[in-house]
Amino acid sequence: MIIDLRSDTVTKPTPGMKEAMFSAPVGDDVFGEDPTISALEEKLAGMFGMEAGLFCPSGTMTNQIAIRLHTRIQTEVICHKYSHIYLYEGGGIMANSLASVKLLDGDLGKITASQVAASINPDDIHAPETTMVSLENTMNKGGGSIYTLEEVIPIQKVCQEHGLKLHLDGARLFNALVASGESPKDWGAQFDTISICLSKGLGCPVGSVLLGSKADIKRARKVRKVMGGGMRQAGFLAAAGIYALDHQVERLKEDHARARALGEMLLKKSFVPEVLPVATNIAIARLDGITPEFFLEKLREKEIKAVKFGPDLVRFVTHHDFGDDQLEEFGKRISEM
Amino acid sequence: MIIDLRSDTVTKPTPGMKEAMFSAPVGDDVFGEDPTISALEEKLAGMFGMEAGLFCPSGTMTNQIAIRLHTRIQTEVICHKYSHIYLYEGGGIMANSLASVKLLDGDLGKITASQVAASINPDDIHAPETTMVSLENTMNKGGGSIYTLEEVIPIQKVCQEHGLKLHLDGARLFNALVASGESPKDWGAQFDTISICLSKGLGCPVGSVLLGSKADIKRARKVRKVMGGGMRQAGFLAAAGIYALDHQVERLKEDHARARALGEMLLKKSFVPEVLPVATNIAIARLDGITPEFFLEKLREKEIKAVKFGPDLVRFVTHHDFGDDQLEEFGKRISEM
Amino acid sequence: MIIDLRSDTVTKPTPGMKEAMFSAPVGDDVFGEDPTISALEEKLAGMFGMEAGLFCPSGTMTNQIAIRLHTRIQTEVICHKYSHIYLYEGGGIMANSLASVKLLDGDLGKITASQVAASINPDDIHAPETTMVSLENTMNKGGGSIYTLEEVIPIQKVCQEHGLKLHLDGARLFNALVASGESPKDWGAQFDTISICLSKGLGCPVGSVLLGSKADIKRARKVRKVMGGGMRQAGFLAAAGIYALDHQVERLKEDHARARALGEMLLKKSFVPEVLPVATNIAIARLDGITPEFFLEKLREKEIKAVKFGPDLVRFVTHHDFGDDQLEEFGKRISEM
Amino acid sequence: MIIDLRSDTVTKPTPGMKEAMFSAPVGDDVFGEDPTISALEEKLAGMFGMEAGLFCPSGTMTNQIAIRLHTRIQTEVICHKYSHIYLYEGGGIMANSLASVKLLDGDLGKITASQVAASINPDDIHAPETTMVSLENTMNKGGGSIYTLEEVIPIQKVCQEHGLKLHLDGARLFNALVASGESPKDWGAQFDTISICLSKGLGCPVGSVLLGSKADIKRARKVRKVMGGGMRQAGFLAAAGIYALDHQVERLKEDHARARALGEMLLKKSFVPEVLPVATNIAIARLDGITPEFFLEKLREKEIKAVKFGPDLVRFVTHHDFGDDQLEEFGKRISEM
Repeated sequence: MIIDLRSDTVTKPTPGMKEAMFSAPVGDDVFGEDPTISALEEKLAGMFGMEAGLFCPSGTMTNQIAIRLHTRIQTEVICHKYSHIYLYEGGGIMANSLASVKLLDGDLGKITASQVAASINPDDIHAPETTMVSLENTMNKGGGSIYTLEEVIPIQKVCQEHGLKLHLDGARLFNALVASGESPKDWGAQFDTISICLSKGLGCPVGSVLLGSKADIKRARKVRKVMGGGMRQAGFLAAAGIYALDHQVERLKEDHARARALGEMLLKKSFVPEVLPVATNIAIARLDGITPEFFLEKLREKEIKAVKFGPDLVRFVTHHDFGDDQLEEFGKRISEM
Repeated sequence: MIIDLRSDTVTKPTPGMKEAMFSAPVGDDVFGEDPTISALEEKLAGMFGMEAGLFCPSGTMTNQIAIRLHTRIQTEVICHKYSHIYLYEGGGIMANSLASVKLLDGDLGKITASQVAASINPDDIHAPETTMVSLENTMNKGGGSIYTLEEVIPIQKVCQEHGLKLHLDGARLFNALVASGESPKDWGAQFDTISICLSKGLGCPVGSVLLGSKADIKRARKVRKVMGGGMRQAGFLAAAGIYALDHQVERLKEDHARARALGEMLLKKSFVPEVLPVATNIAIARLDGITPEFFLEKLREKEIKAVKFGPDLVRFVTHHDFGDDQLEEFGKRISEM
Repeated sequence: MIIDLRSDTVTKPTPGMKEAMFSAPVGDDVFGEDPTISALEEKLAGMFGMEAGLFCPSGTMTNQIAIRLHTRIQTEVICHKYSHIYLYEGGGIMANSLASVKLLDGDLGKITASQVAASINPDDIHAPETTMVSLENTMNKGGGSIYTLEEVIPIQKVCQEHGLKLHLDGARLFNALVASGESPKDWGAQFDTISICLSKGLGCPVGSVLLGSKADIKRARKVRKVMGGGMRQAGFLAAAGIYALDHQVERLKEDHARARALGEMLLKKSFVPEVLPVATNIAIARLDGITPEFFLEKLREKEIKAVKFGPDLVRFVTHHDFGDDQLEEFGKRISEM
Repeated sequence: MIIDLRSDTVTKPTPGMKEAMFSAPVGDDVFGEDPTISALEEKLAGMFGMEAGLFCPSGTMTNQIAIRLHTRIQTEVICHKYSHIYLYEGGGIMANSLASVKLLDGDLGKITASQVAASINPDDIHAPETTMVSLENTMNKGGGSIYTLEEVIPIQKVCQEHGLKLHLDGARLFNALVASGESPKDWGAQFDTISICLSKGLGCPVGSVLLGSKADIKRARKVRKVMGGGMRQAGFLAAAGIYALDHQVERLKEDHARARALGEMLLKKSFVPEVLPVATNIAIARLDGITPEFFLEKLREKEIKAVKFGPDLVRFVTHHDFGDDQLEEFGKRISEM
């Protein structure tokens, strides 16, 4: 049995989800006629109290569209230097929107309102105009760390005061909400746009939804078109999203519990002096004495997959297809190393 | 019964295709592990004798990626002024690749080798450097007109002589090949890249494949990432493509025959003095005395859908879900107008 | 004696202009402290009744900045297919602003209000949003043809009705105004932005000024910075502009008279069946029986310089350094050919 | 007497330089016919042992052109986080070239070969491809700090090993060379392109020259065109550059000596606990107890100008128009504060 902990994107649909996909009514969404896509967009927008949603093939696309909406040529995005939008989207901030970045540092991948306030460029021809702040919750490179509403509200206030747009890369937002017990509507109220990924912890095969105002989503539809994200009868995919929202949200707590257990197992190894605080479904081990490449090779011999996440870091992500049996097996194999 | 002739994109998967979709093995394609996607990419590349393929969410994306591959900032694309890449992709040539366009005119949406040769910019700082020619086959705005190999080979020769890349927007290439009897391999040999759309005449719900050299497809994978087209377990969609290639190519001839019959029915109306030559599955009626809006309204009353295609043009597209019964019914309703 | 009629850009400053240049007070314009640049910007803005001006190193830069101001990614510019901004600025519309172009045809390089109205894209995801119209006066590729206010006002009205910005590439606007007798203020009232070139008929060594609203010019200053057009003590160049506006505008009429005379001389040659109507200082000869290359070679032998301007066209431009003596000499040499 | 130490860009040409400007032969450089511009380009290229040069209106333009040459869409530039190209060029890396940035930290604004090596992105679709490294010498934000050849050569080696281009923003390169005694040719040998600014310590009114290979400069000419930097009879400005290279290089040492003296004067003030090491003509004072705004206001009252350079930093730059008299006067005024 291979234990794949590289990402929560590797999950395959459950029988229930496949059944939902298979029986979904579909239509040509470019003509706005796929009822299942529309239902998903409305369902998610409703959950977050936002006006509208847009189904896209990936979380990279929903993030990149949001950046296009909130910037122009010669403007700047403020985000943590470990943000997915900066590190893992192929340079899209620049390639798609020609915007600059102000990269902030901060514990566990998080930034604060005062940092944001201090990073807004002055009105000067030498500097791009700051127009947007982007947060990520949970924060992947921060070990699945969580922003609380209490931390976000002051950032939102700074944004309002300075006319900045606030975007949330919510690739794993449901992990955060399940862990904190905070409500989607309270989160929806803080942001101009939110990306929700369906193919991570939620277990869907494909897709991400961008939430925002009606006006922004109308513009987003045009951006999605030019990026090539307009799909035809994609209701099959959207049906999986609806199913996941109905049946696979609460169970994220199990992923979190297993990630914590897995983190403790790792800590028992002499070459793992530290595991970043496990707040959700990600456990990042810091290595001492061995390289990530060496550790990954040893894991591969035990049929365990994980990913290098820095010069001395290895990341493990728990997910729907990693149950208690796998956890136990993981413990056994790791103890033998 | 609604008769929907707006586009061949409106089709829904057949039971056989759905069966193929939901029994397909899938995996995380971002890790290169979806066997069905890989199988589709290899199958199509093999058919056209090209090295590699890349599955994307739309034909706009495959075209836009090809343009990115074959241009740089301050270069120029030569194409017909009616090209889909210029007219219907949201200004993507400029928005995605910052490239200029040289727009040629020509009968039924087609251009010739001598036109291309005369349109290559001189080596002069005032003009962008010409680096790419793009053809479309069949040509949508030309009424589904067909390029023959005989017409394409001299264009390819001009491209070679001047170091230009040649791309084919093959959104409806199988319609052309079925009509002409020419072989995919002979076509594959003429182009640097080809876009093949699965969701038009082939009847799949979603997707398009870009074909090219291994090196180009490797670069294309990076471009797809930044455009947000990287999907996870999209093998469900790719399975439909494989099924269509196996079962739904030859039947395109039926669409062509029905389009011809439909064109003749239209010509009987006094307000339709001309139907563009029906070479494949598209019939474009030129109106006299009434506007497209008025005609479309009358059609709507008869539960027939088509689209305006110019100041005095209306387009009808036949497809998998438009059979002989629908054709007969179409004839009846149109005769009553 | 070489007779150089390639362009009105080849002129060298007169002694009076040089005297003005080198006695001008200067300062660091990036700090907004060059009094001569500020004086030029204010003087020109005042002449046209516009709020503000911005001195730039070239007419290409003033045009390209205007396009940046009036477009966004995924928008479209309407202009004549022979426009300088499309043909001779290196593909800058796309390369600098990522905007698409709608290229209109029309006699002598001019477009009409009804053409503009018919070319505005619908609100549809497939098409870039039309946001800008650009005119050129005089129209270089139209043989120095002139737009009258009567022609411009309806275009401006269409723009207002549809929320489009209207830009004027006035590289040779003073030629038009001197010829028509219309006033700068009446022209300034019709446009959002105007480019005025100093280094063509006005005879300055370097520079162009962009005119517009205070808000637009403030933004233009930021765009100029990122394009690298911010200069330090460039008051030496601006002084030439002030001098030219004071002393070298009315004399453009002489250039026009000489261009007409030159056109008549050309028409006497058997291989010149037509000269485009000479409205200002440009004479474009259509050739019959010989190629532009052959004609230019023959001219070179006579120490006359001109430029190829199309497959069968050669352009001659009169200017400050081409006086009656040169005209007479031109006639003599051309008669000997 | 106002003492202006905001920047070395505020200098005005000396009588000798003006005389050189006034008597320079000029021509239309867009046609490649300005002999003085060509002479300057050749002179500088020759000094650095590089193949060719290109005169531009600003150092921002020469840097931005170099970035365009060495990047493509979806690539990344490595530079120090305090680099002028990132902080003070309006976001041009992104706005002009759509490239991403990897921002390194390091003492006095300098980076090392091992940092560069560790920052090159892996061949992975998630990351932009690293194609370029940019250094700045002297380093403005590092207090005019100097890179030595010994530091640069290993960086160049890393670039060669990884196929990266190496650019030098040499806005104040002559300050560095005069201080270190290293030769232009040895520096020219290390870089693909070098920007040399004429309007800083060299005391010219306007202009910067990009040096590189013939092929790169040919491409640079096209980029300059589209950015709007092609000027006509700009030989007047180039003449100042030639004059400065002949007469005003060695005297940079005086600026350095005065900057050191000025730094010592500042250190005597209780509110200036530190002045960054004064390596060339820049003295950056760190404040304690007062804000830059307060200090600048006090200086203004004494008719001294400087600029804020960070939350607790004020920068003073010495230059051609700041002689021993001004230094003495500066000392007097500052002692009275």
